Amino acid sequence: MSALSFSIIKKSKESNGRVGIIRTKHGDIETPVFMPVGTRAAVKAMSPEELEKIGAKIILSNTYHLYLRPGHELIRDAGGLHGFMSWPKPILTDSGGFQVFSLGELRKIMEEGVEFRSHIDGSKHLFTPEKVMDIEQALGPDIAMTFDECVPYPEKYTYAKEAMERTTRWAERCLNAHTREDQALFAIVQGSVYSDLRANSAKDLVSMDFPGYALGGLSVGEPKEIMNEILDFTVPFLPENKPRYLMGVGSPDYLIEGVFRGIDMFDCVLPTRVARNGLVFTKNGKLVIRNAQYKNDFGPLDQDCECYACKNFSRAYIRHLFNAGEILGLRLATIHNLFFLINIMNNIRAAILGDYLLEFRKEFYSNYYSNKI
Amino acid sequence: MSALSFSIIKKSKESNGRVGIIRTKHGDIETPVFMPVGTRAAVKAMSPEELEKIGAKIILSNTYHLYLRPGHELIRDAGGLHGFMSWPKPILTDSGGFQVFSLGELRKIMEEGVEFRSHIDGSKHLFTPEKVMDIEQALGPDIAMTFDECVPYPEKYTYAKEAMERTTRWAERCLNAHTREDQALFAIVQGSVYSDLRANSAKDLVSMDFPGYALGGLSVGEPKEIMNEILDFTVPFLPENKPRYLMGVGSPDYLIEGVFRGIDMFDCVLPTRVARNGLVFTKNGKLVIRNAQYKNDFGPLDQDCECYACKNFSRAYIRHLFNAGEILGLRLATIHNLFFLINIMNNIRAAILGDYLLEFRKEFYSNYYSNKI
Repeated sequence: MSALSFSIIKKSKESNGRVGIIRTKHGDIETPVFMPVGTRAAVKAMSPEELEKIGAKIILSNTYHLYLRPGHELIRDAGGLHGFMSWPKPILTDSGGFQVFSLGELRKIMEEGVEFRSHIDGSKHLFTPEKVMDIEQALGPDIAMTFDECVPYPEKYTYAKEAMERTTRWAERCLNAHTREDQALFAIVQGSVYSDLRANSAKDLVSMDFPGYALGGLSVGEPKEIMNEILDFTVPFLPENKPRYLMGVGSPDYLIEGVFRGIDMFDCVLPTRVARNGLVFTKNGKLVIRNAQYKNDFGPLDQDCECYACKNFSRAYIRHLFNAGEILGLRLATIHNLFFLINIMNNIRAAILGDYLLEFRKEFYSNYYSNKI
Repeated sequence: MSALSFSIIKKSKESNGRVGIIRTKHGDIETPVFMPVGTRAAVKAMSPEELEKIGAKIILSNTYHLYLRPGHELIRDAGGLHGFMSWPKPILTDSGGFQVFSLGELRKIMEEGVEFRSHIDGSKHLFTPEKVMDIEQALGPDIAMTFDECVPYPEKYTYAKEAMERTTRWAERCLNAHTREDQALFAIVQGSVYSDLRANSAKDLVSMDFPGYALGGLSVGEPKEIMNEILDFTVPFLPENKPRYLMGVGSPDYLIEGVFRGIDMFDCVLPTRVARNGLVFTKNGKLVIRNAQYKNDFGPLDQDCECYACKNFSRAYIRHLFNAGEILGLRLATIHNLFFLINIMNNIRAAILGDYLLEFRKEFYSNYYSNKI
């Protein structure tokens, strides 16, 4: 058996969405799926036990951060990421491309790879496609990503083309350097907002026959409409029988729009990051828990929500925890936000299976923008 | 039925210790017991679910902090502390005495009560015995404490006597003001390190027939030997058939010595506070998890420990979490330290029941001071 298999269970009659299942040796993942992010081998404020309880089936961790601290050799010696962080289900690692390019002045891009300085101690490092494959194979996730160059928005055509073509050459070097048979390697389509670049990127990568494809360089500042257009344009170039992953996307509306356009996998730090600042998603929109209006509000964060936070605690209590600086406050908000997104994906899958995806989207938006919090 | 009943199951043949059971409407508490502290209606970094899992049978919360934020009326409206924080088991509230006296320059002591300024916003407040009873009755714990004056160590005899006598008068005022029949009110013995003052305090309070007695003003900086002497001297003045509570004590050796001297209940912020700084208790002594020697240590914090942290994670991983500033690190250290103390109390009860308390103490100390971490 290869590291990963993907089967489509049902195609949506109302959109390009589909319900599928990714099988790995650490377990099955029903798609479309939202993947919580555990950048440094921990999903912030969460325990693995809690992640399992809210229904997370796969989490993401980050090559750049783990390479710098505690080091990929240490994690390999600990039995890989699964053993190190005590997470028995599937894991995907980012390649660090996005992180090193975000370092700005601290990095230098060459054909060979990227030279950069650590954001922790200023030490100098070189990431090449081969080096990144070494690291990801040591980390041992079920799904590794190729090393890519992620350009910001906006970016000029000439440079976007150059970076995209380099990303393709790097993908080929990754493919050659990657030897772990129990690990699937996904390639990343780049090309900024330019449709011909996206098309060429997708075609070239597809010809290399990766077991899955991601769309990178989106959700980096471009308007929502542009992202949706790029999805509309690019997804048809990807093979139907392989998983499609939209990187860095995690707000409820983007998830729904992504699924409509044929995306199977999503990840984002947004739900956990905003939770720690006291912002929670509810079916009636976003709620800022510190607001005075919740002082005496003994109802749950979100009516009818089945998460641990909503089943046991009131808005008044969670507001108190945030005001008092208690860690339990951000834990509860994090549990709720992740559960909320995972639950949306559950509902989306049910809506595709039951052929009511359009109705689901209409009702979701009508509640989410009602502001009846 | 009164708010609380206490039965002794077995007296130690080797010490003044005893195994007992406190029954309340929120559940039974086997004694001797360690009570985790949830100052602001949350045990720091813990969820109620986790507290139940580690075997906590009663927790403590604090009148001073809750009065200031979020306010006792709000908590009363939320159904009392049990409902507000979603903790279904017994709760004890401190009276705020220790906290207001710790404010130093910010408070003024009068016969009527204590005038103080809030550490949060500088606003002026007056705590009288009657006011504190109002607050504790609104908070609704199973066990409330009388409002006392806690003097620091060292304190001159003259002032210690004055403060002790005032504490006795305030205890009587508390008793008169306290009307909730589903709540037990415990009195606090004061008198600093002076045996005649401790004796008089105990005798006067015992004559008022409270359902339980605490020893206050200990573990405030005095040497361990002095604390043990005061316990030796004072405990015999307390009735045998009522629970005895040593306030603010929570290091493993103090717990054992307290039990030997007839103490049934303990509380302390120590295990949770040091945990957040990366210090954990093990049967072989204290361990500072950030130390470089644990970098590649894939064993648990404490060999044979059955807590969630020890059963699932390595020292190397928890060290990484602390170095990376991940909240999960301090959560795991907190779970472990609380479990460690609760487990000591379980072992102590078994040792009293099995008549091997001396042997237990000897073995515990021999491991704890072995430094074989």
